[in-house]
Amino acid sequence: MPNERRVPTAVLLLWGPDRRGLVSEVSRFVYENDGNVVHADQHVDPEGGVFLQRIEWELEGFAVPRDGIGAALSPLAERLGMRWALHFSDQRPSVALLVSRQLHCLHDLLARWRMGELEAELALVAGNHDDGRAVTESYGVPFVHLPVLPGARAEQEDAMLATLAAHRVELVVLARYMQILSERFIEARPGAIINIHHSFLPAFPGAKPYHQAHARGVKIIGATAHYATRELDQGPIIEQDVARVSHRDAVEDLVRKGRDLEKVVLARAVALHLGRRVIVYGNKTVVFD
Amino acid sequence: MPNERRVPTAVLLLWGPDRRGLVSEVSRFVYENDGNVVHADQHVDPEGGVFLQRIEWELEGFAVPRDGIGAALSPLAERLGMRWALHFSDQRPSVALLVSRQLHCLHDLLARWRMGELEAELALVAGNHDDGRAVTESYGVPFVHLPVLPGARAEQEDAMLATLAAHRVELVVLARYMQILSERFIEARPGAIINIHHSFLPAFPGAKPYHQAHARGVKIIGATAHYATRELDQGPIIEQDVARVSHRDAVEDLVRKGRDLEKVVLARAVALHLGRRVIVYGNKTVVFD
Amino acid sequence: MPNERRVPTAVLLLWGPDRRGLVSEVSRFVYENDGNVVHADQHVDPEGGVFLQRIEWELEGFAVPRDGIGAALSPLAERLGMRWALHFSDQRPSVALLVSRQLHCLHDLLARWRMGELEAELALVAGNHDDGRAVTESYGVPFVHLPVLPGARAEQEDAMLATLAAHRVELVVLARYMQILSERFIEARPGAIINIHHSFLPAFPGAKPYHQAHARGVKIIGATAHYATRELDQGPIIEQDVARVSHRDAVEDLVRKGRDLEKVVLARAVALHLGRRVIVYGNKTVVFD
Amino acid sequence: MPNERRVPTAVLLLWGPDRRGLVSEVSRFVYENDGNVVHADQHVDPEGGVFLQRIEWELEGFAVPRDGIGAALSPLAERLGMRWALHFSDQRPSVALLVSRQLHCLHDLLARWRMGELEAELALVAGNHDDGRAVTESYGVPFVHLPVLPGARAEQEDAMLATLAAHRVELVVLARYMQILSERFIEARPGAIINIHHSFLPAFPGAKPYHQAHARGVKIIGATAHYATRELDQGPIIEQDVARVSHRDAVEDLVRKGRDLEKVVLARAVALHLGRRVIVYGNKTVVFD
Repeated sequence: MPNERRVPTAVLLLWGPDRRGLVSEVSRFVYENDGNVVHADQHVDPEGGVFLQRIEWELEGFAVPRDGIGAALSPLAERLGMRWALHFSDQRPSVALLVSRQLHCLHDLLARWRMGELEAELALVAGNHDDGRAVTESYGVPFVHLPVLPGARAEQEDAMLATLAAHRVELVVLARYMQILSERFIEARPGAIINIHHSFLPAFPGAKPYHQAHARGVKIIGATAHYATRELDQGPIIEQDVARVSHRDAVEDLVRKGRDLEKVVLARAVALHLGRRVIVYGNKTVVFD
Repeated sequence: MPNERRVPTAVLLLWGPDRRGLVSEVSRFVYENDGNVVHADQHVDPEGGVFLQRIEWELEGFAVPRDGIGAALSPLAERLGMRWALHFSDQRPSVALLVSRQLHCLHDLLARWRMGELEAELALVAGNHDDGRAVTESYGVPFVHLPVLPGARAEQEDAMLATLAAHRVELVVLARYMQILSERFIEARPGAIINIHHSFLPAFPGAKPYHQAHARGVKIIGATAHYATRELDQGPIIEQDVARVSHRDAVEDLVRKGRDLEKVVLARAVALHLGRRVIVYGNKTVVFD
Repeated sequence: MPNERRVPTAVLLLWGPDRRGLVSEVSRFVYENDGNVVHADQHVDPEGGVFLQRIEWELEGFAVPRDGIGAALSPLAERLGMRWALHFSDQRPSVALLVSRQLHCLHDLLARWRMGELEAELALVAGNHDDGRAVTESYGVPFVHLPVLPGARAEQEDAMLATLAAHRVELVVLARYMQILSERFIEARPGAIINIHHSFLPAFPGAKPYHQAHARGVKIIGATAHYATRELDQGPIIEQDVARVSHRDAVEDLVRKGRDLEKVVLARAVALHLGRRVIVYGNKTVVFD
Repeated sequence: MPNERRVPTAVLLLWGPDRRGLVSEVSRFVYENDGNVVHADQHVDPEGGVFLQRIEWELEGFAVPRDGIGAALSPLAERLGMRWALHFSDQRPSVALLVSRQLHCLHDLLARWRMGELEAELALVAGNHDDGRAVTESYGVPFVHLPVLPGARAEQEDAMLATLAAHRVELVVLARYMQILSERFIEARPGAIINIHHSFLPAFPGAKPYHQAHARGVKIIGATAHYATRELDQGPIIEQDVARVSHRDAVEDLVRKGRDLEKVVLARAVALHLGRRVIVYGNKTVVFD
């Protein structure tokens, strides 16, 4: 997925009602304009009657100029009744990380960003605590401290929204941000919000999942990255992973083992989103990996 | 774990309140009587203040004769306030498998039993449907058909209990037995009951877990082997495992992938139980594997 | 993948030199003839410049009659310089299992076949030992005993080839068949041969891989299903899986844990092959799962 | 494993010839002196006739003062013919990380060290390239650049050894240090050297393992942490892990996925070593986790 050596590509995501015989038209549009396809994948959900497609092709040598692709696609998609999104790999979205006091995901994402693993501009890190400032600034990234004062949660959310807007942030990553976002916040956000939950959802939603897991005596723990929606821990799941535990593991061991899961699962989900490999439909995702 | 080549062993399971300085006494009992220890493991649960131990030693050359070991241990354990269980590896417990119409776990356990993987006598297979008869009898194992007639669930359970008692069954394995056992049944059973649930508990308890998993859009499915208790799917977990799935997997694919999980997880749990490697305390297990 | 409820489908595998703008033609052929596509996937190997595609569509409602599809595809593929294979899901290939004395894969494949997991006719089981006869015949499948007499390996292979030919076997599965096949045998076989090797190839090729793994002190063991080629354990890999082990595991424990790997890995590989999801090119596979 | 909240402990590792009836003496020494045991595990290697034990107990309340424990153990161990090592959890060893240009393991270990996951003093980071300086120094850790000049490999190793000696380094971690160490270096090191190899050893030893893995078409890749010995990539394995790959993964994707493996596997191995949970015997390890 690292894009350095590659020429810029267009990525088209397309989804809508499944209709026999029509769905090849989009592919044909790409092929007939000499698009050199580097990835193409599709999925039909037979229950929902939904067709979903991802197609990525090199811009170099494509007969339609970059600016004209959308206009060319629009009537085609309209006729097919499909929704679509077009992205260009060299237009890197602006990302904000929201953190609290547990900083392992922050450390991990900063290091990945530095090493070029994430196709994004890291606009800022914001925290309701100031703990993340030192490491963030050591990577040359701005840190904004927005504490939640007693009785002033709404004001803090307003300040956060204003900060995100000022940086034109397209993707918000909740990197163990220990605040429950209001419906208003989630709906105000024009772009997506990815959260990491430290359990294998739907097991152990809500607070202190490792304590819950320990009390239940499970033999495997997990982590889940999902899009935040109005219902807490109920949004579409992007990625999950698990690790084996035993009776020897105290809660603090689950927390420690869980950190490695959370880091990897969140980073994978963010990279999949940034690579335009995720389509949400209903309360589920299709991940074209 | 296969015992064929090994000399017979004694397995002592021991659990009770953790007390400093006392717990070595049991080990010393074994060592001082020239027990050649082939496995020793222990665990302290610091929250519950519970000490749990498994010690296995060869009977050959042990200073105390087999019949006298219990009598020798009893006062020691009483003084320490510990509960204990003593088993001999050459006394193979009698096991019954309960099945319905989905027979993959039955096929799998029969094959393992034939190949010597399970240290047990397979007394019988009983089903509320007759589907399992052919394969069971092809292995030379008796099959008992105990259908659940309308309004006669209690009578069927009585017949089942009588059958188990007649065969002196010590362990009941619910190998995808699609009947919810009454409290009365569970309490009447002198030995243990192991169930396989086709989800990663506590996610998706109850009916049709693969349908639930598909609707939620999880990226990983699981299976859980646990001791049956009065609360459905809430008993102590012995073993779990998981498999990765994607949007491409329809419910029937989850069912198919899940079968392989169920087979392996149930077989592992049964082998661990038969190897006397599981101690239940509270609603959890310690598994000395 | 189980096909019972589904209407019959055509599966087209196609591979050849990657050429921009041409590759959509095959898809278009399907779509323009009203093929209701149930699966489509493709891959471009940029190093080799190879394009590979799998497309599966329902025969019901397809404008070209089943008998005419090949004739319609042929000129198209020829013009594109592509090789291709066309299969119909309701034409179940004839399979033979070859076994020796370790029968866990045999038990497992027989049970899967009985439960409808494998889209194949099970023509026969053949063994250089007679051990597999009882279980094979209990499933109503013919068993052929072809012992390898001293100095008569070639004769045994001749008898095996004749048996396979007599049953029009298309796929040979080496289910822990402990004989090294001659080049002659491998080349004489018109269809494919799938082998299960009990290690994570390329680690520990050849004899006694679990002993090798134990001696090296690895923390993970594996199993590998691959197409048999003239070079032992060097053929294209179809599927692999692994299991964690520790210092507690003696060689016999590795063997026991490995059996579960071997069963699952071989069964998956066979199902993938039968589902026409594997294309071999060079010494590698593309698996459209 | 994090030790902050815990009282200091003594950790005794003990290994030698297995002898019936004697091995309880060491446990008894701990128990009879009122040692509150927090972890005890043992292993008998029946092939080698070797007994290995780890026992950890709280120093608080132990009847023998810290300084006298070694003297008290010495005659006991001598009589039993056992080798032993005694550590105290509050004496944190000094560690050096050696790096080149690929810095993901460095980033990861620095972050873990900062978050208290590693029970060690991080004395310095040394590199044959200067690339690691910025991130190292941002964590307040000294960075030493020791380039390998043409024809001066031995001189660079001398400088490295002098640097390690000056910092009294007990553990050297090769965090993707892309230099092959001379026998002289390995033998000169008084403490241990842990290396991360970016393959599932013994598959793909030596250079460019991801290229080798891609060429072979494996379906799973791995990483291996091991003690460095004179034979390249042949030392005792501490930890391994794997990740699934497919034909879609180019070499650069294997490299990217492999980085996550390398980070986690190396960090686990270092934590296990620092927790005094590893005993090397022969060319293998016992890991008391």
